[in-house]
This record gives sequence, structure tokens and C-alpha cells, in this order.
Amino acid sequence: MTSATRPYGTRERRRSIGSQGESRGGGEERTGPAASEGQEATAILERARAAVDPELRAAVDSLPRRMRRVARYHFGWEHADGTPAAENAGKAIRPALVLAAATALGGPAARAAAVRAAAAVELVHNFTLLHDDVMDRDTTRRHRATAWTVFGDADAILAGDALQARALGMLAEDPHPAAAAAAARLAACVVELCEGQGTDTALEKRAPAEVTLDEVLVMAEAKTGALIGCACAVGALYAGAAPEDVDALDAFGREAGLAFQLIDDVIGIWGDPGHTGKPAGADLAARKKSLPVAAALASGTPAAGELAELYARPHVPEDPDDLDRTALAVERAGGRAWAQDQAADRMSRAMDELARAIPDPESAGGLLSLAEFVTRRST
Amino acid sequence: MTSATRPYGTRERRRSIGSQGESRGGGEERTGPAASEGQEATAILERARAAVDPELRAAVDSLPRRMRRVARYHFGWEHADGTPAAENAGKAIRPALVLAAATALGGPAARAAAVRAAAAVELVHNFTLLHDDVMDRDTTRRHRATAWTVFGDADAILAGDALQARALGMLAEDPHPAAAAAAARLAACVVELCEGQGTDTALEKRAPAEVTLDEVLVMAEAKTGALIGCACAVGALYAGAAPEDVDALDAFGREAGLAFQLIDDVIGIWGDPGHTGKPAGADLAARKKSLPVAAALASGTPAAGELAELYARPHVPEDPDDLDRTALAVERAGGRAWAQDQAADRMSRAMDELARAIPDPESAGGLLSLAEFVTRRST
Repeated sequence: MTSATRPYGTRERRRSIGSQGESRGGGEERTGPAASEGQEATAILERARAAVDPELRAAVDSLPRRMRRVARYHFGWEHADGTPAAENAGKAIRPALVLAAATALGGPAARAAAVRAAAAVELVHNFTLLHDDVMDRDTTRRHRATAWTVFGDADAILAGDALQARALGMLAEDPHPAAAAAAARLAACVVELCEGQGTDTALEKRAPAEVTLDEVLVMAEAKTGALIGCACAVGALYAGAAPEDVDALDAFGREAGLAFQLIDDVIGIWGDPGHTGKPAGADLAARKKSLPVAAALASGTPAAGELAELYARPHVPEDPDDLDRTALAVERAGGRAWAQDQAADRMSRAMDELARAIPDPESAGGLLSLAEFVTRRST
Repeated sequence: MTSATRPYGTRERRRSIGSQGESRGGGEERTGPAASEGQEATAILERARAAVDPELRAAVDSLPRRMRRVARYHFGWEHADGTPAAENAGKAIRPALVLAAATALGGPAARAAAVRAAAAVELVHNFTLLHDDVMDRDTTRRHRATAWTVFGDADAILAGDALQARALGMLAEDPHPAAAAAAARLAACVVELCEGQGTDTALEKRAPAEVTLDEVLVMAEAKTGALIGCACAVGALYAGAAPEDVDALDAFGREAGLAFQLIDDVIGIWGDPGHTGKPAGADLAARKKSLPVAAALASGTPAAGELAELYARPHVPEDPDDLDRTALAVERAGGRAWAQDQAADRMSRAMDELARAIPDPESAGGLLSLAEFVTRRST
């Protein structure tokens, strides 16, 4: 905790963060303040998607044919055979955060000016997804075959390269006075994202006992927190915010992003495959050192030893109990509770940072809704 | 030919373009005007390398440890074990062209202002080399093992991604009034480079008879001409040149770049492995559809049929005559003569474009020397 002030009633909300796993099927999320916040966030996401989509599609459609096809497939706008599709293009949380930050600090004019930058942030996110899937040999993304499995490694790598170039290129073409600072920030963020992905790859190759919880946290901040922080900072830049407020927005996004990753990892173990696109237990089957697992392994409990033993040998798909035993070991070693507490703690820090830049909770509303939504999401 | 004017004595020089293959060992290049031009170009390259190196190293050293190590290895500054090295970092023709164009159009002040942009162009070039080597599974570059063979695909891809981000990021941080236009141009060039690489990969998968000479020319312009053109255009932008002069410099670089590629392909078949770092015949052994081969295949001569037959089956390393027979077929089908004529023609067009932007040959001197050097190079 970095501050004694707790604006926006954070403490009261704390126990609800990441509780979607328990409430699944119970319908609790449909009632009370959380439900209305979820509805507000959904509306914000939809409005952001509608604002950013034309810019995003124009950027992708400006690519030469070969890379355009890969990118349009990746975004879910086309099937593998090139026919039109309307598949899940992702939640577009990052562009929504750009626009929400611009609105919070600069009102509707700043929001309108930041649409191109919001699209650039989403292009960067998708460039990293294209490349990460190649490196990780992941075959499914958003319920669909990943681009490299359809078009081959070379075309997936090239489409990713081109999306990064378009993202930074469209900021270079943007006459807005904040565009250069936004481009510099986004480029620095790409370097951090690459470092996060590299560390992730390296950590996955090491034995579980040789990976510390701190290393996994640092990796997650670089891989996930950095771009969510950058999105908020870019929005602040387009609002003409003071440097310290831009940095506070970055810190807000980083903390909220880490909370998001913690909950994503919880969902990756216990979550709902119908909603997340990631089958429950997939991370455990791949013996991934996700945050709850790293915490469990570091707990010094008897269950930690059991988990280390399970992780020492590959997952046996024929043994239906293997994943249940592994998930139970993570839970008994405290990995799940730690992740939920840590997510709540990160959200609390995020709120502190947000309150620093935007003391008025009303103005911060959109950012608050999005941050709380992504840490309690079930879609 | 696009113009009747022939400034700078192009016609007289025409036959010497690409003639390095014949003169090898004869020492002709050490005498006469060509030799002094070569010395001038070498001096220009050395001066450019000295000016750009600190900026380049600072950019690479700003990367996090993992990617810094890959990039430092790739540039020849470190061995694979991380100990310092002073290996061949490439000729740095592109940054030299940035500086030469800035000097030609804006004098020493423009040259000094363009150093960062010159480094950015070189970073982009090296990002594409890192990625191309992964995609093409090439194992040797500049006489050394390629980065992916040493560090793995993931780290080589990530280092490339980070170099692109640093390149465009350092232009975003550059307060020079031309920086945004330069960044936009460089980003658009990256997209074209990716398209060129994608087309190359696709062409290599097709049967020789299904590849037209025009396709190979278009691919070579995108893959090689585009960045050399962009380098010249970026230099012109930093000199505050008028848009039509920036475009003329781009066209100059594209034409000279294609001439460079034609000669590079000639060297790839008949050239000197000690000098180029590419063993003679390597392109033929890989059955690569380089420009002379594409021209030979399209010639309709009996030798074209023979070449098509040789290319239809893989190279036999045990048969010492296989490469000689293949090279002879390309030559008898006119592939070598076509490439040399085409290179001379491209250089002639390059000179026209250059004369359009810079009518005074004295001012154009550096650009001329570099362009003629790269099309007659033996190093």
C-alpha cells in the first residue's frame, strides 16, 4: 500500500475482486453495484470499439495484400479463406483505456483527438499477440486457430512487424501536439513488452524450483502491465496532462494491468472455458509458471512440494484427475488466495495512483469502471 | 531511360558497372577513376560509420539485457559468450546515404542533424536482417552464425521487434522539425520491406516456371530498393528539401538499390566468397530465384530449359560440377549479361533522378560515389 487515503471506496470492494470464480453460475454478478458497473464498462467498451474500429480497419486495410489478409484474419474480420467474418476481435480494453483517460483529463475534445492513438495502441497489442503465438507455438487465440497455424510463421511474423510499423507510423502522421510523445512512449513500451515476453519464454524453460515469485511478477508487469499503463498515459498525453499526471495514469494502468493478469491466471486454472476462450486447466496442463502457481511453489507448504512433484513431470492427458489434483495443490498451497489478495492490493494501489491524477471520482468514472471490470470479468 | 540528359558522365561509366566479377584478381579496380571513386566512397563510409556508431550503440545499449545481448552479437560487437568483439557490422551504406543526402541538400548542419535518423535507418535494416534470417533459416550472416542459431528464434524475433521500436522511437524523441515526416516515411518503408520479404518467401516456394521476371523485380525493389530510397529521402527531409526533391532522392535510392541488388545477385553466383561473406554459388545451391536466374529462365533459350531442369531437382553437394553447370546455364541463357545491363540501366535512371534534385554534380558527389561504389563493390 502506498497511501493511507482510500478514495472511491476501494476497501469495501476489495473482497469482490477476482471472485468471479466462486460466483460462477450463481448469478451474483447480475445484481448489486458490481452488475451496474459491469454494464457501464460494457457500454464504455462498446463505444470505444465503435470509435476506434474505423481507424483500426483503415490502418490494416492500408497494408499490402498478403499482410492485410493475415491481419484481417487475426482480428476476426475474415475467415482463413478470405471471406468476411465477424468473429471476436478481443475486448479492446486498451483503446478504451486510452479514450477513458483522455476523457477523464481533457473531456470530449481530447477523446476525439485520441482515437488514432487508441487504434495505434491496439495495433501494438495485436502485433505482440501475433509474434507471441509464433514463439509460444500457441494454436488457439480467441477460440480460433492462431495466424501462424493458418498462414505459416513467416507471414505471421511479417504481419506483426507491419502492424508495429503502422502503429508508430500513424502517430508520426498525427499532427496532434502530443503525438510525438505518445509515439516515444509507445515505442519504449514495445521494448518492455518484448523484454516481458523474452523473460516469460526463459522462465518457462527453467525448473519450477529455480523460478522466484518476484521474477514472475516483474515479467507480468512488463508483459501485461506495461501496455495497459501506456494506454492510460497516451490518453493523458492527448488531454495535455502534466507530466506527473501522465506518469500517475501510467502507474494506475500498470497496477490495474497486473491485477488483470492475476485474475487472468486464476481463470486460466479454475475459470470458465466458454467465456475466456482458454480451457480451464490449460495453463496447468502446459505446466505454465503462472502467478498463482509461482506463489504456491514459493509457499513452503506441504502442498507446494506436491505441486512441484506434479510439475516435474508432463501432464498426462489420459489421467482425468491430473489437472484436478494440480489445481487443488495450487489452491491448498495458497496460490489462489494469494492471487486474489494480490489483485485486490494492486487494484488498491491503482486507485491511489488514479486519485493522485484525478481527485474527482466522477471524472475518473470511466477508468474506474474499466479497471474494476477487467479484474472481475467473466467474458 | 526516363530522360535524355546524361549528367555526371553516366554513359561513359556504364560498362564498368558490375564488372567486378571479370576484373577479380586483375587489380584493375586499383587504378583509374574507378579506384579513386572507390577510395572516396570508402572514406565516406568510414566517416559515416564513425558519426553514426555512438548513436547506434547508445540505442542498442538502452535495451534490456536479453535483447541487448542478441543485438550486440548481431552487430558484431560481442561474441556469442558476451565478450567484446570487433567483427564486421556491415557496410552501413544506408546511414552513409542518409548523411550524404543531408549534406548534398543541406550542408554540414543538415548532416549533423541527421545522425540520429541515420542510426534509425540502420536499426531498421538490422531488424529486418534478424527477422529474415529466422524466416529463411539462414545460418550465416557477415561470416558469422546468425543470431537465431545462437540465441533461438524467440530472442532473435524479440530483438528485431525491439530494434524496430527503438528506430521509430528515437525519431519520435528527435525534436528536429523533419523527424515526424522521417518517422512516417521509415514506418511506411518497413511495411514495404515486409511485403518484399513475404513475396520473396512465396516466390521461393513456387516452381521456377511459375515465377515471372517482373515479379522478381518488383520483389527486389520492395525488399532492397525501398530502404535505400528511404535512406536518401530521410537525409533530404533533414536538409529541409522540397517534397519533389525528397521524392527524387527516394527514386534515386530505389534505382541505385536495385542496381545494388542486381550486382549482389551476380556476386551470389560468380562472386568472391572471401569478400562478400556469401560463398559463390550459394544462391544456386539453394535454387534461389535471384534476378539473373529469373532473367535466364525467362530468356526462351535452350540454356533456359537446361537451367529449369537443373533447378527442378535439389543441388547435389557431392557433385562438384553441379554448381558450375548451373552457373554456366545462367550465363549462356543471358542472365549475367542481362543483370549487368539492367544494373547499368538502373544506375542511369538513378543519375537522372539525382540530377533532378541536385543539378550540381559537385554537390551530389557523396551520393554519386556511394551509388557507384555499391554497384561495383568487391567488399
